[in-house]
Amino acid sequence: MLTAHTIKVIQSLDKKKFRQKYNLFLVEGSKTIRELIDSRHKVNQIFTTAEAQGNFVEFPENIVTLVTKAELQRASLLKNPKDALALCTLEAPAELKSVPVTLVLDSLQDPGNLGTLIRLADWFGIEQIVCSPDTVDLYSPKVIQASMGSFTRVHVVYTDLMEFLKNSPHPTIGTDMEGEDLYKFDFPDHYNLVLGNEGNGMSKEVRACLDTTITIPRFGKAQKTESLNVSMAAGIILGVSQRK
Amino acid sequence: MLTAHTIKVIQSLDKKKFRQKYNLFLVEGSKTIRELIDSRHKVNQIFTTAEAQGNFVEFPENIVTLVTKAELQRASLLKNPKDALALCTLEAPAELKSVPVTLVLDSLQDPGNLGTLIRLADWFGIEQIVCSPDTVDLYSPKVIQASMGSFTRVHVVYTDLMEFLKNSPHPTIGTDMEGEDLYKFDFPDHYNLVLGNEGNGMSKEVRACLDTTITIPRFGKAQKTESLNVSMAAGIILGVSQRK
Repeated sequence: MLTAHTIKVIQSLDKKKFRQKYNLFLVEGSKTIRELIDSRHKVNQIFTTAEAQGNFVEFPENIVTLVTKAELQRASLLKNPKDALALCTLEAPAELKSVPVTLVLDSLQDPGNLGTLIRLADWFGIEQIVCSPDTVDLYSPKVIQASMGSFTRVHVVYTDLMEFLKNSPHPTIGTDMEGEDLYKFDFPDHYNLVLGNEGNGMSKEVRACLDTTITIPRFGKAQKTESLNVSMAAGIILGVSQRK
Repeated sequence: MLTAHTIKVIQSLDKKKFRQKYNLFLVEGSKTIRELIDSRHKVNQIFTTAEAQGNFVEFPENIVTLVTKAELQRASLLKNPKDALALCTLEAPAELKSVPVTLVLDSLQDPGNLGTLIRLADWFGIEQIVCSPDTVDLYSPKVIQASMGSFTRVHVVYTDLMEFLKNSPHPTIGTDMEGEDLYKFDFPDHYNLVLGNEGNGMSKEVRACLDTTITIPRFGKAQKTESLNVSMAAGIILGVSQRK
């Protein structure tokens, strides 16, 4: 059963302040919760319907609580509530790793974009995302939801970008409208790819740390088209970067 | 001023039934409304704040109505209401055109995905999207919003996919997990690219019409990653298809 108090705690996890107060974050849906099994994340409690219970036999019995569909619906932060939700312990802040390719996010604000970028990084075998301290929080339920379990595999580090970029031994690539044509650009084996804020792009300070910029050319008569969404632009760049 | 009746009409346009009843669809935000100026779409009425009024000098004066911010907020279907909204006449259904590349959508349900795909098509100079009749409606406010004005430039046609594909002179390419490696695939100059439903992929009937299938390979250790979202997959495929 889900008490009114627990429901209140669960719903408060939408806010960073309460995630820090309770040292918890929320994961919704059997599929994503199951991805936590072999991960570095600690699952404290799982609330599941009887139908979905079979998904959780690999978890200790004493953390699995049966609840009704109506209770889950009351607790869920989703428009379309799932069959289960889990409360997990917040990780200690991730430390920087030395990896071939790092995505660098300069003040990204949209949780859907961060989640999508984590999923993309996972797809392309990119193990690290470095975020400016004012980038949307990894543990926001919408980020976790959009990342679809990829947050268990990609390291997301919040740190001062200037310091990271100045100390990085790899070249730093940015995107803008006047950069080198993506299709003519020869991607190095090691690099940092900077993606800027949804409305304002990169900050001046970060821009000053770039070694080069690239551009996704527009095709056809699309001169009027809005620039692509930041996660879509990243997907296209990473996709093209893999060509032989 | 926005009367209670007009607000009710505007909000009803969230539903296809009422869009058809009033023969209207909704466009929110000066930027997108301005894209209608040279388009095939007819703007019936614009409601704008005094601050945003300057954006609409190219429209006939008698269709522009000044309203307060509070009125716009009450009428808007958006979480973050914009500075203006417009009521436009529904188009007569678009007719099939003969173009080099057509995106073919088999029962796509998510309005954000359709909007994003329209924006992508516009970016890549693809002039036509053919949708199965049960694909989400082009004039859903969320589709219009996500397409960001690109809906004024890309033809979106709803028709029987089997008939379209059987009559098309161009090869039809689908995506699945066992197709040819995207990076080894030699894109023809003319083709139809089929994208399937978010949960269930392509229907059996459409699958039977394919000439070939392609796959976006996973990189690194990402074997567990959820398959990419349909619009992201399309972005990567279209991006890679443009390589020389």
